[in-house]
Amino acid sequence: MTVLVVGSVAYDSVTTPTDSREDSLGGSATYFSIGISRFAPVSVIAVIGDDFQERHIELMRSRGVDVSGLQRQKGETFRWAGEYYSADLNARTTLDTQLNVFAEFSPKLSAEQRGSPYLFLANIDPELQLDVLDQMERRPDLVALDSMNFWIDGKRKALNRVVSEADVLFMDEGEARDYAQEGNLVTAARRIMSMGPSAVVIKRGEHGVLVFSANTMFSAPAFPLDHVVDPTGAGDTFAAGFIGYVAATGDKTPEGYRRAAILGSVMGSFCVQGFSVDKLLTLTKRDIEDRFRAFTDLTAFAPLRDGDSIFPSSRPLCTSC
Amino acid sequence: MTVLVVGSVAYDSVTTPTDSREDSLGGSATYFSIGISRFAPVSVIAVIGDDFQERHIELMRSRGVDVSGLQRQKGETFRWAGEYYSADLNARTTLDTQLNVFAEFSPKLSAEQRGSPYLFLANIDPELQLDVLDQMERRPDLVALDSMNFWIDGKRKALNRVVSEADVLFMDEGEARDYAQEGNLVTAARRIMSMGPSAVVIKRGEHGVLVFSANTMFSAPAFPLDHVVDPTGAGDTFAAGFIGYVAATGDKTPEGYRRAAILGSVMGSFCVQGFSVDKLLTLTKRDIEDRFRAFTDLTAFAPLRDGDSIFPSSRPLCTSC
Repeated sequence: MTVLVVGSVAYDSVTTPTDSREDSLGGSATYFSIGISRFAPVSVIAVIGDDFQERHIELMRSRGVDVSGLQRQKGETFRWAGEYYSADLNARTTLDTQLNVFAEFSPKLSAEQRGSPYLFLANIDPELQLDVLDQMERRPDLVALDSMNFWIDGKRKALNRVVSEADVLFMDEGEARDYAQEGNLVTAARRIMSMGPSAVVIKRGEHGVLVFSANTMFSAPAFPLDHVVDPTGAGDTFAAGFIGYVAATGDKTPEGYRRAAILGSVMGSFCVQGFSVDKLLTLTKRDIEDRFRAFTDLTAFAPLRDGDSIFPSSRPLCTSC
Repeated sequence: MTVLVVGSVAYDSVTTPTDSREDSLGGSATYFSIGISRFAPVSVIAVIGDDFQERHIELMRSRGVDVSGLQRQKGETFRWAGEYYSADLNARTTLDTQLNVFAEFSPKLSAEQRGSPYLFLANIDPELQLDVLDQMERRPDLVALDSMNFWIDGKRKALNRVVSEADVLFMDEGEARDYAQEGNLVTAARRIMSMGPSAVVIKRGEHGVLVFSANTMFSAPAFPLDHVVDPTGAGDTFAAGFIGYVAATGDKTPEGYRRAAILGSVMGSFCVQGFSVDKLLTLTKRDIEDRFRAFTDLTAFAPLRDGDSIFPSSRPLCTSC
């Protein structure tokens, strides 16, 4: 099942306490398409400037990514610069954002792309997300959506319309609270589900992910790493693993979304182990399967069965209970 | 197996965005002993002032807590006042601390207490923790320890000595990083284990808990609640569930510590659903077992088996991998 992604392709400059990298390949559509290419055919819609290097297009193509939707425009490619700090690099400051050709981005879908059964609307202006939805020849089997505070604050109405069309919504903790205008995360997620999505996926970075779907909650940790190189792109690579699982298996049940969240966490955890998409390029099938199994080891405990001795029978503890 | 706890018994005044409570029963030894009383016999060593109410002693006694080690001194009981704010009350400010009789606390163990097989050294001056350890007639089967930044910064040498004697160390994320002088949490935990403890339990509040033991890591989420009333005491009540499990079952394997962490999370999640120890007092065995099972529902996903179709066999993805 082909997955269509619309988002950004960018050159990122990243500084961490110990290292830095200038103008490396970045952008939500880049991380997503390279990440998901292991699991499903993927086609990307994005805009690039006339400075965008052919070798980077070739790199995406070599992963099986359909790059026919990369629209080259006169001007420079979208650029982002940021600095990570604090323990485990879990805080960042944006140093510079240059929209460049992205400022005039107008997604154009080909006839084939308009028939894509899976659609990921990465974090861009919700009006562009709606534009893409309108171009689809029929409602995709799965519409997944990412957004951010900038749009929650600035384009709530348009965002509401996209959210009402989405099956799966990705947001981080603070965004979900802001969007639902509700401080409690559980209540916030339920409120957002009442607007349309059948699954709300709350990304918590180093603290993992919460998945709300149907009447169930699922909590998955982030994989504890002893060295984080560059957190850029982890959220989009998480989405790639998540949607990649659904696209590869067709499983949209709450149980399927649980494994999807684990595969998302697996991919996100690899992403942060290298600058840019570096680590994603070297992953073997074995690496991915081993870490999926490591998540089972990380989270498994023996369930409570009848007769388990949590309460010592010999102890009359409280007469009233 | 009797568990001996040394810690604080206090009167707390707590303010949240929607409510407040003055001079309610608090203190690490209080939360711990009431929490663990469901799972094991418990004996408490703490100091109280002449204002400490008889009905609060009776309340602890009614839960089966051995209160013979409550030392009444002339003066007022330890008082703490704090305010919780932000979404889910996950941030707090201390408004006032009055050590009162706690300033001169000198733990005195009875002959029976000196033979306790399980010992929990709640968060007090590490020199007092050492004093208690020295009074034990033999090394307990399990020594568990809690501490905080105040002692890490101010009494590192004494703390090092207690840590070297402990089997299980509880710390929060920031404390573990500060104590190990290492920003990465995994590396910090391993460094602390090399100082003595066979298990390091990293408390992350609303983000759950990480358990490092032997060469394994275990991650458990906090139970997502749609209403948090008062987070005070959650850490000590977590410790009560954790050590209660070990004391009730005798299981000190990594697998046992996993279930211990779940029972700790169960008890901690109940604690925050009421002011003071209120919610702990109304819990039935059924409540506790149901929430333990809810943790299984919250975290379970189907493991990866051979032949699982995460990778579509039809797709030749990458020639190099």
